[in-house]
Amino acid sequence: MVVELICVGTELLLGNIVNTNAAYLSEQCAALGLSCYFQSVVGDQAERMTSVLDCAAKRSDIVIMCGGLGPTEDDLTKEVAAKYCGKELQVDERSMERIAEYFTRRDLKPTENNWKQAMLPEGAVIFDNNNGTAPGMAIETDNVKVILLPGPPNELIPMFEESVVPYLKKLTPGIILSQTVKLCGVSESRVETELKDLIDNQTNPTIATYAKTGEVHIRVTAKADTKKDANKLIKPVVKDIKNRYGQDVYTTDEAVTLEKAVVDLLIANELTVTCAESCTGGLLSARLINVPGVSDAYKAGFVTYSNKAKRKLLGVKKTTLQKHGAVSKQTAEEMVKGIALETKADVAVAVTGIAGPDGGTKEKPVGLVYIACDVKGNTTVKEFHFSGNRMIIREATVSAALRLMRSCMLEYFSKVTFGEKK
Amino acid sequence: MVVELICVGTELLLGNIVNTNAAYLSEQCAALGLSCYFQSVVGDQAERMTSVLDCAAKRSDIVIMCGGLGPTEDDLTKEVAAKYCGKELQVDERSMERIAEYFTRRDLKPTENNWKQAMLPEGAVIFDNNNGTAPGMAIETDNVKVILLPGPPNELIPMFEESVVPYLKKLTPGIILSQTVKLCGVSESRVETELKDLIDNQTNPTIATYAKTGEVHIRVTAKADTKKDANKLIKPVVKDIKNRYGQDVYTTDEAVTLEKAVVDLLIANELTVTCAESCTGGLLSARLINVPGVSDAYKAGFVTYSNKAKRKLLGVKKTTLQKHGAVSKQTAEEMVKGIALETKADVAVAVTGIAGPDGGTKEKPVGLVYIACDVKGNTTVKEFHFSGNRMIIREATVSAALRLMRSCMLEYFSKVTFGEKK
Repeated sequence: MVVELICVGTELLLGNIVNTNAAYLSEQCAALGLSCYFQSVVGDQAERMTSVLDCAAKRSDIVIMCGGLGPTEDDLTKEVAAKYCGKELQVDERSMERIAEYFTRRDLKPTENNWKQAMLPEGAVIFDNNNGTAPGMAIETDNVKVILLPGPPNELIPMFEESVVPYLKKLTPGIILSQTVKLCGVSESRVETELKDLIDNQTNPTIATYAKTGEVHIRVTAKADTKKDANKLIKPVVKDIKNRYGQDVYTTDEAVTLEKAVVDLLIANELTVTCAESCTGGLLSARLINVPGVSDAYKAGFVTYSNKAKRKLLGVKKTTLQKHGAVSKQTAEEMVKGIALETKADVAVAVTGIAGPDGGTKEKPVGLVYIACDVKGNTTVKEFHFSGNRMIIREATVSAALRLMRSCMLEYFSKVTFGEKK
Repeated sequence: MVVELICVGTELLLGNIVNTNAAYLSEQCAALGLSCYFQSVVGDQAERMTSVLDCAAKRSDIVIMCGGLGPTEDDLTKEVAAKYCGKELQVDERSMERIAEYFTRRDLKPTENNWKQAMLPEGAVIFDNNNGTAPGMAIETDNVKVILLPGPPNELIPMFEESVVPYLKKLTPGIILSQTVKLCGVSESRVETELKDLIDNQTNPTIATYAKTGEVHIRVTAKADTKKDANKLIKPVVKDIKNRYGQDVYTTDEAVTLEKAVVDLLIANELTVTCAESCTGGLLSARLINVPGVSDAYKAGFVTYSNKAKRKLLGVKKTTLQKHGAVSKQTAEEMVKGIALETKADVAVAVTGIAGPDGGTKEKPVGLVYIACDVKGNTTVKEFHFSGNRMIIREATVSAALRLMRSCMLEYFSKVTFGEKK
């Protein structure tokens, strides 16, 4: 079954809001095993809305339209869809009552135009709105089912889960299941080349790669009648990819980010962590601290932006700063040893670099970054060269720091296992 | 001129990512005075991509396609667009060199498929990619201009600002000039009501409001033959808005963010700043430090996530934490006084709150945040209640902290002026 989304709203065309409804509905439909090949956004204008609906209805079995069910004059979605499907609008008593009830419960008086929301297409399947006044609906014709949902996410999401999912499940046989293998420190083009044999022969499951900053995600997606059968198709492929990339795979769980993988590794090994940041200015700590439960591992960190702060708070030697500069292997190393000593954390990270736009020289260009990681006294310092604007360089640095933390911890654990612990 | 957006990517159809590129590009095009009536999303599949492109090319003057310019096999956008426009792909020497350079700078070896990105449509206008390997381009035919941009926002946004904006400006007859009045601490609905008279009578210049986290941006856009004439149209409206909102206006410069306004205020008054962060975990420092030149004001900051860190680094009293809790007016106040003392900064900010998802209670629910700001000994502590997920609450907190810093400084300056300085 093929579904298509049409999001209605001038605010989307003007870029005033981000289209989170499309992402939510797409994900839900994929989980229900519906194939989605197209999404559209159109404004509150009857003619253009009709043309988009016509196009969608001709190439898809189900069309989900969201937005434009409000009480005001420029809300046209229901009128356009009903007309397109050849259905008259008529008063729906139940919706009338529910709207009246909605206002009385809030000690509010409905305005005249609210009753417009109780005018529904003849024979439509009605979806109750428990969080607003606009009911949702499915208008059914021989060729297509047009589902209309309110635009506000706090109305759309509950309505979708309570009413639309059961409605769609009745229509759809089989399911789609996907699993993501997340790699760090490997380029997308390398992955593409190395998985060519798998990707070229893909039918079911299918394999797709996505590049994120410093990461590559490989999604394996299977269609089957049951979840069990879909899993049978996915498992061997995921296993194969994991074997090929070993430690470069940081998770096979869609919900796990690189920072969460790092925090999980810290907590699982009862390690505490700290950061001393110069050019990233708190961005690395902020990413770690966005992981719920991080308080077991992260206690304190320093933003040491000035040289004085590096000396006073981290004990970086004046001579080191004079001889090698604030952006140097030596300073990064003294920063990491300093913060490890100061906070007594098991794992310490220090970052110093030139984020630009100014401050670059021929010897030390903008984008030069040193990251030091110390795991229980075992210190590693790496040099990086990033390009882009200030924000891009700082985010690339944070991503590189997370990768370095992970690899240093894994290396330390392997040493410990083989009794070479320092 | 009518522009249309086509975002390419299976990850959008599967709902794995939210389509922030569409929002960004729509807003930018609106600012350039281009009308956008349709947006589409299509997967990495040649036939469907072609049908969407054909539909768009027939109803719009400019089609912007983003995504699918990567080196991998499922990246087809360039091939599809070139074929549709009847252009052959040929090697672009300059792009070859730039790609080679990109890899050598990173001590990496390009894989075979990277060179695919140097194959460009004959006669296309090339947009350099300073943050990745995929160049952008404009393929021009008699009927339509098809602009191709890389999908990753950290490549798309700089490319759009550096190369596409100048390209589009050349296409649009006359001058479209816009100025943005940025307000903080005022709700969008309030602004829309208060500016109704201006917005209802708008023709040229037009007035549009955009809500950002804790901010409202009002863009005044005028069309005219010359820059001088456009400015004549814009100035009185901007002046009117500035008069209506006074100190709530933090800038009328598009390039100035709230954090830059705060940093500029600090530097102009030769004040240093520091942050002690708990729930925001470095996010506030990171935003301040994203402003070039901040080193004159920001020297050092602390991330004090644990109670022990609050006591040890900031001197928060054990009794205060026991009696009032880590998330309390009292703790915020002791944190800010502690960091001011420790760093001797003129302006100090302290943040403590419950970002969730866990840790909330009936008395102290998730979203409860205390922010303290101290300007040369004058301390203000405010209580906030935010809703949303962990990230949303933390970003709302950072935005509120910046607004509080600004208002506290302005209040301090006014006192100083009137000789009431504490």
